[in-house]
Amino acid sequence: MEAKKEPKLENGINIDQLFATVDLIKQKPDVAEFKFRATNKWINGTHSQATVRDFYGALTEDNSRKPVLFDMDEPPVLLGNNRGTNPVEYLLAALSGCLTTSLVAHASAKGIKIRGVQSRYEGDIDLRGFLGLSEDVPVGYKNIRVYFKIDADVSGQEKEEMVRVAQKYSPVFNTITKSAPVSVEIDKK
Amino acid sequence: MEAKKEPKLENGINIDQLFATVDLIKQKPDVAEFKFRATNKWINGTHSQATVRDFYGALTEDNSRKPVLFDMDEPPVLLGNNRGTNPVEYLLAALSGCLTTSLVAHASAKGIKIRGVQSRYEGDIDLRGFLGLSEDVPVGYKNIRVYFKIDADVSGQEKEEMVRVAQKYSPVFNTITKSAPVSVEIDKK
Repeated sequence: MEAKKEPKLENGINIDQLFATVDLIKQKPDVAEFKFRATNKWINGTHSQATVRDFYGALTEDNSRKPVLFDMDEPPVLLGNNRGTNPVEYLLAALSGCLTTSLVAHASAKGIKIRGVQSRYEGDIDLRGFLGLSEDVPVGYKNIRVYFKIDADVSGQEKEEMVRVAQKYSPVFNTITKSAPVSVEIDKK
Repeated sequence: MEAKKEPKLENGINIDQLFATVDLIKQKPDVAEFKFRATNKWINGTHSQATVRDFYGALTEDNSRKPVLFDMDEPPVLLGNNRGTNPVEYLLAALSGCLTTSLVAHASAKGIKIRGVQSRYEGDIDLRGFLGLSEDVPVGYKNIRVYFKIDADVSGQEKEEMVRVAQKYSPVFNTITKSAPVSVEIDKK
């Protein structure tokens, strides 16, 4: 029996796989094309439920994951019954996971050992947009503020650089700050 | 004992409360200022956990909700272990809940009775952005496509109008399509 080669892990990230993926994509850019999906079913009032399961990537449909359900609702002050978290809070959760992963993955590729990363998010929304009471306020977030704490043996300047790189390569951060086109149609299927 | 007045519900939305809120905000615009929040803790590798609890709105801090935790991770092809849903999938879930609530709330205000709303979401991401392999591809979503099925006794044209209004007033849709500034800093606290 041959000994199985252990993958090189840095902060739990498989660095060998990361660089192998980079090499593969350089040769076959199609491998980098991913399609992510969700469905949503309205339940009642402001309560709806999203389901996430399959995705396409690395030239393959992946149906191997079990469906995960996400309940979304509003608090009573926003006409709901707290049967789930608010969609605009889900957006902050998405941003938090993406910035964190981007920070850790890119630092790991550089061999920086990380003991801990914590972050907090706060965003401002003026409900007059949603209610159609003012054309002068944005309907979406006016501002989002993010604060990171990084526990690692690096200088303050290097931590600033880690946070800069996290933003540069985070898909959710870039979707929000640079915008993305969203087409919404009646389903003909 | 006086009989308690039943609120007017349309599709589970309290229409009396909705119009009372509109009247209040017209007099006191500060009531419309909301702050939504999340925190995130990195666990290991591509796995992190977000927590959502408190928010500010209607001139009040709301700490009444129990914390809700969201695990985020990547599938093995993206260096993770499926310990949670991908952050870019959370973004689609957020969009789905927000468009659905916007659609139902604005239709309810017009007195349109809805039996069902379902929708599906698909977005394209080219991983060369995240990996820093190309400056020519967006790091975030290139495109997001949304398809709605509405079960209600209205014409096809009215369903198109419901979908148009849903987009116009959805905070998450507008954050994504019109962008929002996000500041990311090292936490000095």
